[in-house]
Amino acid sequence: MFDLQELKEDCLKIRAASPIVHNITNYVAMNFTANALLAAGASPIMSFCPDEMLDIVSASDSVAINIGCLDSQLVKAAKIAAAAAKAAGKPWVLDPVGVGVSELRTKVAVDLTFNYGPSVIRGNASEIIALAEALGCGSPITRPHGVDAAEEVEMAVESGEMLSIKSGATVSVSGPTDYIIKVGDGIRTVENGSSLMPKVTAMGCAATALTAAFLSVNENAAKAALHAMAMMGLCGEAAAGATKNSGSPALGTFAVRFIDELSNFNLG
Amino acid sequence: MFDLQELKEDCLKIRAASPIVHNITNYVAMNFTANALLAAGASPIMSFCPDEMLDIVSASDSVAINIGCLDSQLVKAAKIAAAAAKAAGKPWVLDPVGVGVSELRTKVAVDLTFNYGPSVIRGNASEIIALAEALGCGSPITRPHGVDAAEEVEMAVESGEMLSIKSGATVSVSGPTDYIIKVGDGIRTVENGSSLMPKVTAMGCAATALTAAFLSVNENAAKAALHAMAMMGLCGEAAAGATKNSGSPALGTFAVRFIDELSNFNLG
Amino acid sequence: MFDLQELKEDCLKIRAASPIVHNITNYVAMNFTANALLAAGASPIMSFCPDEMLDIVSASDSVAINIGCLDSQLVKAAKIAAAAAKAAGKPWVLDPVGVGVSELRTKVAVDLTFNYGPSVIRGNASEIIALAEALGCGSPITRPHGVDAAEEVEMAVESGEMLSIKSGATVSVSGPTDYIIKVGDGIRTVENGSSLMPKVTAMGCAATALTAAFLSVNENAAKAALHAMAMMGLCGEAAAGATKNSGSPALGTFAVRFIDELSNFNLG
Repeated sequence: MFDLQELKEDCLKIRAASPIVHNITNYVAMNFTANALLAAGASPIMSFCPDEMLDIVSASDSVAINIGCLDSQLVKAAKIAAAAAKAAGKPWVLDPVGVGVSELRTKVAVDLTFNYGPSVIRGNASEIIALAEALGCGSPITRPHGVDAAEEVEMAVESGEMLSIKSGATVSVSGPTDYIIKVGDGIRTVENGSSLMPKVTAMGCAATALTAAFLSVNENAAKAALHAMAMMGLCGEAAAGATKNSGSPALGTFAVRFIDELSNFNLG
Repeated sequence: MFDLQELKEDCLKIRAASPIVHNITNYVAMNFTANALLAAGASPIMSFCPDEMLDIVSASDSVAINIGCLDSQLVKAAKIAAAAAKAAGKPWVLDPVGVGVSELRTKVAVDLTFNYGPSVIRGNASEIIALAEALGCGSPITRPHGVDAAEEVEMAVESGEMLSIKSGATVSVSGPTDYIIKVGDGIRTVENGSSLMPKVTAMGCAATALTAAFLSVNENAAKAALHAMAMMGLCGEAAAGATKNSGSPALGTFAVRFIDELSNFNLG
Repeated sequence: MFDLQELKEDCLKIRAASPIVHNITNYVAMNFTANALLAAGASPIMSFCPDEMLDIVSASDSVAINIGCLDSQLVKAAKIAAAAAKAAGKPWVLDPVGVGVSELRTKVAVDLTFNYGPSVIRGNASEIIALAEALGCGSPITRPHGVDAAEEVEMAVESGEMLSIKSGATVSVSGPTDYIIKVGDGIRTVENGSSLMPKVTAMGCAATALTAAFLSVNENAAKAALHAMAMMGLCGEAAAGATKNSGSPALGTFAVRFIDELSNFNLG
């Protein structure tokens, strides 16, 4: 449900503009995420020092905030960065990793969602459901199983709709089918991808960072989120095919080929 | 000295249960360790925020604590997590990275060993010797050469025995031969592996995390530690064989193939 | 403009001595940098805990300090480590990542440059120009475009000369041509490399860490810096050639092959 031509145009714009994407992200994902952004043609910056946050956001085209490894400094930096992005009219993406697993994460995710105006909220089904639940909307669920999606993505669509209504943000739910939900603008889906993707760490964080990259070249947040998930899905499919024993879950090779595919995407 | 059938049964249990393994580990190792856990079928969580430590341990099946990149917050989080795991009867593994290199590391490792009841202590020869020495047991040694094993693993066996006696923990010493030592239960060994393994960063940390994964499905700590080292060794051998110029130390390819082997282990 | 035989001799010395290189570096780069050092035959340590900094520097042969992810603890640790290295006559390398992007980075980089006596300052063109400008020397420039080199490396040579005069350090400027500048000792260049190198994160940080490794076996700082950049360039070229579709920017494979080349360099 995406237009390949529009996706390619956005990709070209990213390669041409080399937008600076500022990432406040978790330590597990930093290297893979930086390489994913570079492969797509963007320029990553990663910092979570509160004292330089205003300077960094000022130099950036968009911001991605991921709460995968919380600490007090990261929370402080995230709030400064989100507020500065909002004030400057720069798009920013929230990735509420593991929301619902701890009270702290839930509290921080809710605060960022409602008081700092993210353009897009991107998470897996469990996270979107847990965030909506924390806000008193969406369907009640069982406790999320770690940071993997235990609930079916489909169950998250209703939560995503409520979350989009309450927050005004576009909600991007990743899973076997990705759902991009924007209140008043319907639901878009991406069917592409590979079952190997959730078995490589930082795939979700890379999707969040790419969403921020697309937001820097496309003012339509729902389309930017859609294009990011479509590029992830198409490259995941291609990487799974390119993995030597493509029938087997050779996850090391798959991760490397995924970056290969991102870097070769739309090159002729 | 391990039973391949028992190892495979534990591997199947991990893939079936997808246990949540909480990791307090160093920044260098996080990505590789998370991918190793995912490849083995476990669900990694990584956090060192003291404020959410109780929630995270409560949601986890086992815990791995690695002191490779110490700071005051990590030490605080490690103590909360270890105490919570002990109180809840959940197994946890201590990886005393670089103990003996600084007074701080030695102090923290000794404290965690004696006051927080780890199920397994996993380290290389230098680390096990240094930790035993700090406790006034084991053989006196020269200063460890960084965080690589400079002493022969064999020299660490005596230290490991003393350490197991004093702490009650199973001691897992990695090296060309791995020794799993449990007071009153003898010594088990793993002869598998590759000389390339110590030349890839985070291999030891991955072994620690896998030990925690096996502890979540096997109540016998010595067997869990044995199976983790056996899986590491078998996959290391296979990865060395699969590396294209298998005679050469092509360490980048080897690291990728190692994750491939973990993900393909016991699948057919 | 480097002597291949001298480079190989230094490489052999590193493999023979396995020098301990202490790294205070950013979270994005840690894993790749540690693997690059291991592949070259060195022993990496990575810590930024102020309380153990004296012990760690005391156990190390050289130090690399990279300000890519600043926080107050890292700054404190960096100053202790740099002062201890200087006092002990151990070489250390400064990598002023993103200097000029924030006031904080500029302040920290200037302080480390002038008050802590780095043996080598290694950065891309933008960083060297921005650091020189902050010191009131070099040519005035436009704001650096993120942490990538937006300015031509050639433009940085004048800044590098002024920086070397003012600081006494060797200045190593990376780019399509690398320039190693030492006041009173002329300018050396490396023409090797691949256009894929700046598209993989942590390549610059690895160059900094390798510079520290070479400094531990070669007292001539300019030659040590030259050999590090030459090894990077030669391995980058070989990795680009080895990348399957060598005409395409398959960045995942390239990064893996780069570590392969480092580990196979000068082995027969």
